[in-house]
Amino acid sequence: MNLTLVASIAGISAILFAVYLAWRILKQETGTSRMVEIHEAIREGAVAYLYRQSRAISVFIFILTILLALTLGFFAALTFAIGAFLSALAGYMGMIVAIQANVRAAHMARAGLDKAFATAFHGGTVMGMALTGLGLFGVSILFYVVGEQPFQIVGLGLGASLTALFARVGGGIYTKAADMGADLVGKIEVGIPEDDPRNPAVIADQVGDNVGDVAGTGSDVFQSYVCTLVAAMVVGYNEATKYGEGSVMFPLMVLAAGIFSSILATFFVRIRNKSARRAINRGIFTAAILVSIASFILAKTLFDNLNPFYATLAGIVTAVLFAFFTEYYTSTDNPPVKAVAEAAQTGPATNILMGLATGLESTAIPILIFCGVVFFSFEMAGLYGIAMAAIGFLSITATLMAISSYGPIVDNAHGIVEMSGLSLEVAEVTDALDSVGNTTKAVCKTYAVGTSVLAQVAMFSAYVQAAGLSTIDLMKTPVIVGLLIGGMTTFVLCSFLIKAVGKAAFEMIGEVRRQFREIPGLSVGKAKPNYAKCVDISTRAALKGLFIPALISVIAPLGVGLILGAEAEGGFIIGNIATILPMALLLMHSGTAWDNAKKYIETGKLGGKGTSIHAAAVIGDTVGDPCKDTAGPSLSTLINVIGSIAILFATIFVTYALFR
Amino acid sequence: MNLTLVASIAGISAILFAVYLAWRILKQETGTSRMVEIHEAIREGAVAYLYRQSRAISVFIFILTILLALTLGFFAALTFAIGAFLSALAGYMGMIVAIQANVRAAHMARAGLDKAFATAFHGGTVMGMALTGLGLFGVSILFYVVGEQPFQIVGLGLGASLTALFARVGGGIYTKAADMGADLVGKIEVGIPEDDPRNPAVIADQVGDNVGDVAGTGSDVFQSYVCTLVAAMVVGYNEATKYGEGSVMFPLMVLAAGIFSSILATFFVRIRNKSARRAINRGIFTAAILVSIASFILAKTLFDNLNPFYATLAGIVTAVLFAFFTEYYTSTDNPPVKAVAEAAQTGPATNILMGLATGLESTAIPILIFCGVVFFSFEMAGLYGIAMAAIGFLSITATLMAISSYGPIVDNAHGIVEMSGLSLEVAEVTDALDSVGNTTKAVCKTYAVGTSVLAQVAMFSAYVQAAGLSTIDLMKTPVIVGLLIGGMTTFVLCSFLIKAVGKAAFEMIGEVRRQFREIPGLSVGKAKPNYAKCVDISTRAALKGLFIPALISVIAPLGVGLILGAEAEGGFIIGNIATILPMALLLMHSGTAWDNAKKYIETGKLGGKGTSIHAAAVIGDTVGDPCKDTAGPSLSTLINVIGSIAILFATIFVTYALFR
Repeated sequence: MNLTLVASIAGISAILFAVYLAWRILKQETGTSRMVEIHEAIREGAVAYLYRQSRAISVFIFILTILLALTLGFFAALTFAIGAFLSALAGYMGMIVAIQANVRAAHMARAGLDKAFATAFHGGTVMGMALTGLGLFGVSILFYVVGEQPFQIVGLGLGASLTALFARVGGGIYTKAADMGADLVGKIEVGIPEDDPRNPAVIADQVGDNVGDVAGTGSDVFQSYVCTLVAAMVVGYNEATKYGEGSVMFPLMVLAAGIFSSILATFFVRIRNKSARRAINRGIFTAAILVSIASFILAKTLFDNLNPFYATLAGIVTAVLFAFFTEYYTSTDNPPVKAVAEAAQTGPATNILMGLATGLESTAIPILIFCGVVFFSFEMAGLYGIAMAAIGFLSITATLMAISSYGPIVDNAHGIVEMSGLSLEVAEVTDALDSVGNTTKAVCKTYAVGTSVLAQVAMFSAYVQAAGLSTIDLMKTPVIVGLLIGGMTTFVLCSFLIKAVGKAAFEMIGEVRRQFREIPGLSVGKAKPNYAKCVDISTRAALKGLFIPALISVIAPLGVGLILGAEAEGGFIIGNIATILPMALLLMHSGTAWDNAKKYIETGKLGGKGTSIHAAAVIGDTVGDPCKDTAGPSLSTLINVIGSIAILFATIFVTYALFR
Repeated sequence: MNLTLVASIAGISAILFAVYLAWRILKQETGTSRMVEIHEAIREGAVAYLYRQSRAISVFIFILTILLALTLGFFAALTFAIGAFLSALAGYMGMIVAIQANVRAAHMARAGLDKAFATAFHGGTVMGMALTGLGLFGVSILFYVVGEQPFQIVGLGLGASLTALFARVGGGIYTKAADMGADLVGKIEVGIPEDDPRNPAVIADQVGDNVGDVAGTGSDVFQSYVCTLVAAMVVGYNEATKYGEGSVMFPLMVLAAGIFSSILATFFVRIRNKSARRAINRGIFTAAILVSIASFILAKTLFDNLNPFYATLAGIVTAVLFAFFTEYYTSTDNPPVKAVAEAAQTGPATNILMGLATGLESTAIPILIFCGVVFFSFEMAGLYGIAMAAIGFLSITATLMAISSYGPIVDNAHGIVEMSGLSLEVAEVTDALDSVGNTTKAVCKTYAVGTSVLAQVAMFSAYVQAAGLSTIDLMKTPVIVGLLIGGMTTFVLCSFLIKAVGKAAFEMIGEVRRQFREIPGLSVGKAKPNYAKCVDISTRAALKGLFIPALISVIAPLGVGLILGAEAEGGFIIGNIATILPMALLLMHSGTAWDNAKKYIETGKLGGKGTSIHAAAVIGDTVGDPCKDTAGPSLSTLINVIGSIAILFATIFVTYALFR
């Protein structure tokens, strides 16, 4: 109880710190009336979309709550509903502040790089703190309420992850339909620059950045955070005989320490020598070192030996390594992206193939690292070790989410600067911040995948214990079948998502073309486009595309478990991990490599903008859009929906499956 | 012994039938001197390449033979070398006849559709018969030599599959470098049609069709055939206590029956009502029905119950279903390809995304069918049932390979007709045959994947028995790590292959552009291009790209087995299957969907040739080229290399692994 209180205080501290930062941001000036006008358009669009999305989701969540109450009892249904609400809240809060921060960062850019950076980074930090604070506070309070029996609050994870899946899918479809529509017609056909106010899809594009990259990522990481924490506590509870009572509290305490470390780390993130990237890296390293020290002390206090600490440390190191390798494969400074850019010299096809090859190759090292951490942490402390490695990985979430949300904030800020006709120097400032933001976005997407997959391994451990399995034998055909279906689910889900974006983009392109054709004077800036029409297309497409992926993610694990039994469900989970990890890395890294190859050319390399090489790279970038921002991120959420369902229904699979 | 003799007689019959058909083809006329000239250029290029490829492979095979002799003994090394030789021979024989058939089919097209079809189909049948004949004869003779102990001849499978991997990788890189170079410069930049003699890469492209689609596919299917047969016999031998002595002979007998069924079926493949597709389908159904009846009679004779027959029948049905669903997703008559074509209206990016989504979606049904057959056949007769399902799937190989090789023959015939300036009516005949050939090529590629994956499941069964494993427990971290690495290997291999093609195509494009620029009068047909230079680029690229994939395919399974032990190796095999099956289907179906979407537009739909829609579809087609013809097919060979290594080294993994 004593320690549970500490954890909830850490959660509240994070929320208070978020409120403080938000207040500081809101105090800042918002710039010219033109800037405010654009900002308002983005805000309205984003809030309107989230409202409609929430309404659509609530029906689904409501039905599921009833079903859960009928099958698993009232309390499971209640935690489910709370999880869903908190996940949506985390995304929503972060997004509202991010939108307030973007216009202020744009305004601050007139005062210099460091000021603009500080505003954007603080805006991102609000998200990081709100998310981890809500997560830790929610879990610790509920944990207290249920009498410290972690198994009772597994429903929280399912609610959070299902809501996150909706947010990812909806946000992903929304943002990419708009982005593709804006780019393909604006850049290629009409020949106007990105973020040009003449482009009818430009506001929808900016809205999309917020509902997708900010709110979607926020909900996603929130759910990984909650799922991992609950799973680790469940495993700790079951293994308490081995490690003593401390094993349930250790995960809570490490995450509490992570929050305080991340709060401290924010004070180290200041621009010196004009390098935003170095400032960010300093933040990551500071947080990682502080939380490592804290975990060491905690483990010393709670346990007889340091094995759980080593597992946790392995997780922290993995988080840093993941960031490093993602940067290698996706930053414009390194050979892979340059090779993708050079391949554009022989046209879009070779550009696309080289990006694909880069993404495929980039799966190797993260997976080997992942295998290493699973192997090592299991050697250290069995299933509990794996769970603690996942906790270690997640301990610096607040810092990494701050960096992640920084990306769309500066992206929007740059858009606002471009559209408001501010001076070239100001645009250069926001452009410099934006280019760093692009890499941090990629790093954080990979981090989100890493958290989800590690969370899933922890949940797999919890599932195995919940179902009381002693083996999951690959020599049994139901297990193989479950595994193959788990693998296939990944591919089918991607198909639906890419198709949804493709169709929406098709419609968007038609609309943007129509406006340029039918509104006289639009292309020369003498008339205003109809932004609302494009916002509407994105909204409808996103809402339409929500349900099938959500249904698949619920029905597939339930179906396998109910038909083939608990052991096959274990195969399903592992088969799913085995394909989701490489597929998500492939989709995100390829997508970012294409995007940055295009950006590399736009800096004047290989002929620069306006050449056929640039046009080829834009096509590659467009192909990558739904891969990196819709399908990839949705996969990482799907995986935890599956894990939560498996844990919740474990005993039912054991008792009632058709072939058991 | 008696039955072994029957099997070898069936093998010899197939070879004799192949010789008879080859002799009939060679008797036919070859057409105009211009046609013979082109035919000779293709023949020379293909033979020269295969010669150089064989020389390169032999070094590798020689070293491995020595290593095998030192580790596993002389006999394993000998069977390995024989397997390698037979696999190369099967591909080579089929290709030589196919090249002779193409010019004759081109000539016959002047006499009408049915005559040209007969020549092409008989040319393909030579491949089908040679391959199955060599396989069945080789296995049955060696089986007799080793005193009917099937485990002794596992080396045959490794030799065959490793050689096939070389053939697939080399042929795949060769053909696609040439194809991409020819298309991207010729069609898009210079604006000359496909197969135009002015294009410097056109001969290399035709050569590539033969070394890739004919010789590569031949070696690949040969290795699946041998691997499955040996694995089924090993499993049958181990399960002889359950099913009686007949369980070793049943697989041999079913394949013998399959050969006779296929020979009979060729007489039903005749064009009526001008439909080549219906003639082909008649062939498949006739062979499937005949071999089902024969298997029923064999099972009745050999066993007490019909369970092994039901498993076999499930395999036969699966083969037919696979063909049906591939056709659905890749034929121009059906909605998926039309949707891909329509997506080209908004440019190459949406076209590519829709093709990708189609490929992703197309994985679902085949995998569910696959799960169904594994589950059902195991319920029928345990591991032996799974092995027999694989045998059933493979029983109509001769017919399906005939159809598969028919594709490149008519493709080449059409090329020869175009290049020799024959009349438009003749070109229409070969074009009609070619368009059917495109679908059959796709069907047979999926068939090749299906055979490999089912072979691998049979080999997995044999591996489990060889290693004496009683469980492969997914709750042990080495098994999970092995599984994840097995999955990752798929992605990394694809990366190398696509990159190799990309680089080679880059060079090819440069060369073709150079020739059009520097050879005066080339684009208007007043000068001859330097074909040899392009042939040389493809050859060098293919040889350079051979070794890394081969090394990965040998080192990955050996490494996992030697470091993590026999149980982890089981995880590796399953993880590999779980990713290779969907990835190969994705790559092949997407690739074919793009290709056929382009062809659909070329028939005049959506504006037809010369529009920007067509140009977008050509880009999609090019992206698909290395996916469907290099990476996808190579994956299906990789999988059996892994299986063979696992079986051969099973006891070593059990005894000497680092973590055992």
